Amino acid sequence: MVAFSERRKKLYRIIFEADTAAGKAFDVALLILIISSVVVVSLESIVSLRRNYLQLFLILEWAFTVIFTIEYFLRIYSTPRPVKYIFSFFGLVDLLAILPTYLSLFILGSQYLLVVRVLRLLRIARIFKLTRFINEGQVLTRALRASATKIAVFLGTVSLLVVIIGSLMYVIEGRENGFTSIPKSIYWTIVTLTTVGYGDIAPQTTLGQFVASLVMIMGYGIIAVPTGIVTVEMSRSDRANLTQQVCPNCHAEGHQADAAYCYRCGYKFSELA
Amino acid sequence: MVAFSERRKKLYRIIFEADTAAGKAFDVALLILIISSVVVVSLESIVSLRRNYLQLFLILEWAFTVIFTIEYFLRIYSTPRPVKYIFSFFGLVDLLAILPTYLSLFILGSQYLLVVRVLRLLRIARIFKLTRFINEGQVLTRALRASATKIAVFLGTVSLLVVIIGSLMYVIEGRENGFTSIPKSIYWTIVTLTTVGYGDIAPQTTLGQFVASLVMIMGYGIIAVPTGIVTVEMSRSDRANLTQQVCPNCHAEGHQADAAYCYRCGYKFSELA
Amino acid sequence: MVAFSERRKKLYRIIFEADTAAGKAFDVALLILIISSVVVVSLESIVSLRRNYLQLFLILEWAFTVIFTIEYFLRIYSTPRPVKYIFSFFGLVDLLAILPTYLSLFILGSQYLLVVRVLRLLRIARIFKLTRFINEGQVLTRALRASATKIAVFLGTVSLLVVIIGSLMYVIEGRENGFTSIPKSIYWTIVTLTTVGYGDIAPQTTLGQFVASLVMIMGYGIIAVPTGIVTVEMSRSDRANLTQQVCPNCHAEGHQADAAYCYRCGYKFSELA
Amino acid sequence: MVAFSERRKKLYRIIFEADTAAGKAFDVALLILIISSVVVVSLESIVSLRRNYLQLFLILEWAFTVIFTIEYFLRIYSTPRPVKYIFSFFGLVDLLAILPTYLSLFILGSQYLLVVRVLRLLRIARIFKLTRFINEGQVLTRALRASATKIAVFLGTVSLLVVIIGSLMYVIEGRENGFTSIPKSIYWTIVTLTTVGYGDIAPQTTLGQFVASLVMIMGYGIIAVPTGIVTVEMSRSDRANLTQQVCPNCHAEGHQADAAYCYRCGYKFSELA
Repeated sequence: MVAFSERRKKLYRIIFEADTAAGKAFDVALLILIISSVVVVSLESIVSLRRNYLQLFLILEWAFTVIFTIEYFLRIYSTPRPVKYIFSFFGLVDLLAILPTYLSLFILGSQYLLVVRVLRLLRIARIFKLTRFINEGQVLTRALRASATKIAVFLGTVSLLVVIIGSLMYVIEGRENGFTSIPKSIYWTIVTLTTVGYGDIAPQTTLGQFVASLVMIMGYGIIAVPTGIVTVEMSRSDRANLTQQVCPNCHAEGHQADAAYCYRCGYKFSELA
Repeated sequence: MVAFSERRKKLYRIIFEADTAAGKAFDVALLILIISSVVVVSLESIVSLRRNYLQLFLILEWAFTVIFTIEYFLRIYSTPRPVKYIFSFFGLVDLLAILPTYLSLFILGSQYLLVVRVLRLLRIARIFKLTRFINEGQVLTRALRASATKIAVFLGTVSLLVVIIGSLMYVIEGRENGFTSIPKSIYWTIVTLTTVGYGDIAPQTTLGQFVASLVMIMGYGIIAVPTGIVTVEMSRSDRANLTQQVCPNCHAEGHQADAAYCYRCGYKFSELA
Repeated sequence: MVAFSERRKKLYRIIFEADTAAGKAFDVALLILIISSVVVVSLESIVSLRRNYLQLFLILEWAFTVIFTIEYFLRIYSTPRPVKYIFSFFGLVDLLAILPTYLSLFILGSQYLLVVRVLRLLRIARIFKLTRFINEGQVLTRALRASATKIAVFLGTVSLLVVIIGSLMYVIEGRENGFTSIPKSIYWTIVTLTTVGYGDIAPQTTLGQFVASLVMIMGYGIIAVPTGIVTVEMSRSDRANLTQQVCPNCHAEGHQADAAYCYRCGYKFSELA
Repeated sequence: MVAFSERRKKLYRIIFEADTAAGKAFDVALLILIISSVVVVSLESIVSLRRNYLQLFLILEWAFTVIFTIEYFLRIYSTPRPVKYIFSFFGLVDLLAILPTYLSLFILGSQYLLVVRVLRLLRIARIFKLTRFINEGQVLTRALRASATKIAVFLGTVSLLVVIIGSLMYVIEGRENGFTSIPKSIYWTIVTLTTVGYGDIAPQTTLGQFVASLVMIMGYGIIAVPTGIVTVEMSRSDRANLTQQVCPNCHAEGHQADAAYCYRCGYKFSELA
């Protein structure tokens, strides 16, 4: 770890942490700024508002950007490991949250990308002492990660299905009924299989409607598969009552609540906790 | 408890309870009145009916309102704790069920808010001796409350996703394809992610349709998460219910909730609990 | 049981049972006739076909009806308990399967009701020796019946919600945006909450689209509730491994596979099976 | 097994297996060719591209077909059991992947059927050493197969329902509201029951909208059934997986699938199984 001055340490505690009064105030201010800036970008996109308040929007947008830019450089300045911060997830989000305004000088419309600022809210979570939320989030994430292979197999199968049905419908319905190309037919198949059903393209021929009916019933059944996967995975970790504990010897996760030994390396837990 | 006259006590038993003949008759009459009044408000909103029977509708509406107003004051009069009643959930609903008619003298159209009267049906539940229904309702409510944190994390993630995808689609599709502003694009994203799919706004560009396809498949998978959460929670309280009892004779576990005898040794449970 | 002739007994075995060669042949013939007659009714409803082959359709329809009428009277003649048959579920279906043709002489268009004939297919199930299917059907039915109270609570809550949201949207959107009356707004709410989303009515105002977004997300979450209910119920009977066994003493159903005693009356099973 | 030359054996290892460098290279080349050819067929279906690059598309299509034809005959030549290969699933897919191009000489438009080539990707799975994926796929397939009877009962019930509701809506709404025939009404019922909801056909009469509302709520509930079936089936095979092993030292049950040590006593499992 690089040595660095007292002032930097103080700044670091304010900006990166939330356990001091100043740190908490900083985070609350940031929270308000982020939400305001996203609301401003959203409102700016409404034509009637933009026409009447263009000046105001420009001023606000640049004000937010300048503040966030200063904050960005303060973060780089105060952190003991600037390079690690810059290339971390939050470092990149912080950069993306200011870049579009500068880009909008050259490329029209790029300022709408500023909504990536909402991602910064993920960091603010800590001011609510949301450990319980973060834990629950980890439970959900672990359940999804554990079933990733099953989900990949499922998505792969659905993709093959969608390409074949899409092409079939292109041949059956043809250009005159809105199925103007195979990619568009595949888009229709996804719209139908997921039961979204816009109706911008809909089969007109009897054969097409028959195939569509089969696709719908299939989609109706297929939805059971991801639901089953996720439910079983959540139910498993719920039943086994898996803990947040990490084995201090081999760093394995997902131990049962009543575990006395690591199931991976046999390390004895009992003297802990 | 404040002392109060015999007549009030009698009124209280009729109005607030349902274990006497008069109390039951009162509740049945109320049930019919509430449903009739909601049906009348609904029918009044149909233009052709309103034009022809305006007089009749006005009379009926005021009749219902006068009856409910009298009932409201009788409730305040008969209850031993009027203030507590007035500010209870049902007290507020009872007030909201009469206010709009009086308001409609000043503000046109406010009488349609009278449909909040349906909420009063919740109270009528007791005349059916619906304890079983109320118990089941509590099981559902408990399951939902127990998974509230997980659901909050889930909704938070979906909200961030919806803002980012909405803005992206606004940039991709633009005003000429119906995505006239970021709020409207966010609305479209919700319509698509929840698989509702009105089709009033639908992507026209190839890139937009590609992103839309990803959103649909995502929404198709995301629906598995709340389902998994609720199922696991219900399953947990169900499991707890099954295994509560242990046979005092043979120590067998896993008896059904309505078991009167041990399925393993035939021991009679009934003298317990 | 009423005494009746040999010929009747023979007819009964052919018409009502499927364990003789003649009985099987009868059922297969009936299966073909029922499906053909439903297909004919369906095709007749297509304008272009009806115009060209009206004569043919009329002949076929009357032919099917005459055959089914003869069969109906043979059933009444051969069964030992005619009254019980006539008022049984299948007796009524058999009657409804011939009545519309005769009615069509007086009321135009009533012949399309002939499709109730498909219900007769339920009886034909036995020729496939579909006991396994019937068992599985019973498992599904039992799961649904066991969760009937929960489902009633759920549907009641949804109904209240739908009436209130529907009226709210009527006030917000108004007649000029397609929400022409409260009943129609309630219809829109159901279309949206169930994620069907026709798009024939869609909110136009910003506030309306905001409320609609909330309804969609609610509907997205609400779907988890029936799924959770049914899954838990199925999982319970699966875990407890409930059998088809009926207690010979108290006729209780739903015994666990390893049960030695009836959980309801304590009757000893072991000497059976 | 028929005796055959060294060269054939070598070819067999390259074409049918993936454990040599040459075999792997062959599979990777095939993977790229298959995806490219499907993309080319898809792009060809876009009118604007087809008009400008018809010559190029024709050349590419024939090139792919010639390569796949050579590959097909090499497979027949090198396999020790040509007849078995030809009539295997992959043999038929390989044939279907080249036939449409030759057919397109006689039948216009048949070349779009070439997308069946995506099915060939199923074979390529092995180059990723995707045993884990294949295992997971088998778990999913087993769960679906085990619940096949339940799903058949479910689909049968839904089919009867759909025919009856479809005919009812035809009688209620009639030709003037888009329900032009019973088959079309059945199509509408499927669109509604599966919550797809295109909106190309939508009920106009009040009674029709009322019935439609019932169908939607029914569909909303019915979706719970396949989900419940698949979840319970998956959960069952998952539970079986968890409880297989019993610790030989302390007899603890409920070890995780990848456990190397007993979580209760720390006993090492690895010498087992």
